[in-house]
Amino acid sequence: MACGEFDLIERFFKKRQNQRSDVIVPIGDDCAVLAPIADQLLAVSTDTLVSGVHFYPDMPPHALGYKSLAVNLSDLAAMGATPRWVSLAITLPNVDENWLEPFSAGFFEAAEYYDIQLIGGDVTKGPLSITLTVQGQIPRNQQITRSGANVGDWICVTGQLGDSALGLQNLAGKISLLEGDKARVIKKHYYPVPRLLAGQALRGVATAAIDLSDGLASDVGHIAKASGCKAVIDVDSLPLSDALLANTSVEQAVALALAGGEDYELCFTVAPSALSALETLLAHTGASFTCIGQMHAGEGVEFARDNKQINLELEGFVHF
Amino acid sequence: MACGEFDLIERFFKKRQNQRSDVIVPIGDDCAVLAPIADQLLAVSTDTLVSGVHFYPDMPPHALGYKSLAVNLSDLAAMGATPRWVSLAITLPNVDENWLEPFSAGFFEAAEYYDIQLIGGDVTKGPLSITLTVQGQIPRNQQITRSGANVGDWICVTGQLGDSALGLQNLAGKISLLEGDKARVIKKHYYPVPRLLAGQALRGVATAAIDLSDGLASDVGHIAKASGCKAVIDVDSLPLSDALLANTSVEQAVALALAGGEDYELCFTVAPSALSALETLLAHTGASFTCIGQMHAGEGVEFARDNKQINLELEGFVHF
Repeated sequence: MACGEFDLIERFFKKRQNQRSDVIVPIGDDCAVLAPIADQLLAVSTDTLVSGVHFYPDMPPHALGYKSLAVNLSDLAAMGATPRWVSLAITLPNVDENWLEPFSAGFFEAAEYYDIQLIGGDVTKGPLSITLTVQGQIPRNQQITRSGANVGDWICVTGQLGDSALGLQNLAGKISLLEGDKARVIKKHYYPVPRLLAGQALRGVATAAIDLSDGLASDVGHIAKASGCKAVIDVDSLPLSDALLANTSVEQAVALALAGGEDYELCFTVAPSALSALETLLAHTGASFTCIGQMHAGEGVEFARDNKQINLELEGFVHF
Repeated sequence: MACGEFDLIERFFKKRQNQRSDVIVPIGDDCAVLAPIADQLLAVSTDTLVSGVHFYPDMPPHALGYKSLAVNLSDLAAMGATPRWVSLAITLPNVDENWLEPFSAGFFEAAEYYDIQLIGGDVTKGPLSITLTVQGQIPRNQQITRSGANVGDWICVTGQLGDSALGLQNLAGKISLLEGDKARVIKKHYYPVPRLLAGQALRGVATAAIDLSDGLASDVGHIAKASGCKAVIDVDSLPLSDALLANTSVEQAVALALAGGEDYELCFTVAPSALSALETLLAHTGASFTCIGQMHAGEGVEFARDNKQINLELEGFVHF
């Protein structure tokens, strides 16, 4: 690290910090030193966003700063964790203050709202990419993994699916949107809401959970595989927004909801006996939920309409 | 994430893992879940290495895998922490098994030796870069920061300085080496030894510490600034290896020791009263140490020979 780099960190990332009382040594030493709650577990997740792969190079930097943290917080939500600390490694082709200023403003907007403190990181020169490691805490034995679903469990999702993908399609010039829907749909793509309160409320209730980043069809498959079950999804139950239905055909809407990706809603499973309690449990979290299927014996993911299996051609998101 | 990526993680990074008993949910879920020692603090550090900036694109992948972890462990050492867990985010232009195989072998060689477990990460497509977040633990109130040095404290370093930079100069074709020295010097550059045991032994003894990544002249300046002192370095006391002296002029040797960088030795300060105990304290750590100066009232870094200030022209490492 060198002078230029220190100035950058100082100017855009250190001074505007919220301060948590559990940060003993903040950003700026060899390591941050933190005091976790003694009888809780740590949850840790790392994600990298690469320009041109995970986001368009012209994505507004405020949205990019917000979203890069929000999508990592979504992983904490899926585990039932409460956010604590985040490390940010950012690689930049050059120092552009007009980019760094809104990027860091967007980042700290999310950090302050969700009370997570930036505790370290690195600024390096190179092609634009952003790597975050977020940390949270969970009471012992209350983590929600992907592997706890049982045959007979209901499959639920929070919120509505497909709007973020619809926004991306519009930004890519592939779908035009009615004027009244555009701002809301684009916002769903740029400013996803991590379902942290819902994840915490589901501790001890959900048998398994995952956050929807690649799309339900792919992500629920991870629960099915880790739990040794088959997920059967009733496509007519998918929670689709009025905006999605007003701007696409039903087939397009279902495809975007199942495979569009970047919803950052939670997909979770609950035992049938727990279903009646869900409404009360989630009432204070701001997250609606919908039952969209059930776990069966077998493996993989199946789609059904009127209780009959149907075939859908869906494209997943493959890096290589 | 998608199938190709999962296969990669599975094949090169998940299956060859050592298993720590404090990893409750390992790599492969939304988050790793960890059980820290309840009455200890957490130390966290993040570093990014970008191809063409921090390492030559043709650096042997085994060495790169080893070194990328070792240099992050060096940050834990400087804090006095014991290594626990690491997250690895790697961005690759394409899947090259002939590269990934030795890279992961080198990474896990260091991980197993220092008993740190890979608990998550991300594999993405893009220009080659590696971001690691390492975590360790420290007994409460025993972290060694950069800010605790006092006027009168001695400044010490572990090991010898300049060999890694000499190796890099040779690899860059700028300095030729005597045949008998070459392998050892290149190894110092590719396979630095993080001074973890020394850092732990210095808990409660060193008043401040930093690991030498940019070079002593720059790094000791961080201690001076954070501690509100001036560091005065006696250039004749610098610990220089026989290989360094045999292959360079004395001036070159001093310049490499002060500003060559990448030594990954510890620079630390101790009260004069603690100096006599250092030899015993560090005896079991495999790290020699040398007193190379003293903290004075003032600010910045000064160099001296025979107790007289001298001027040195040194080039630092500036990213931007």
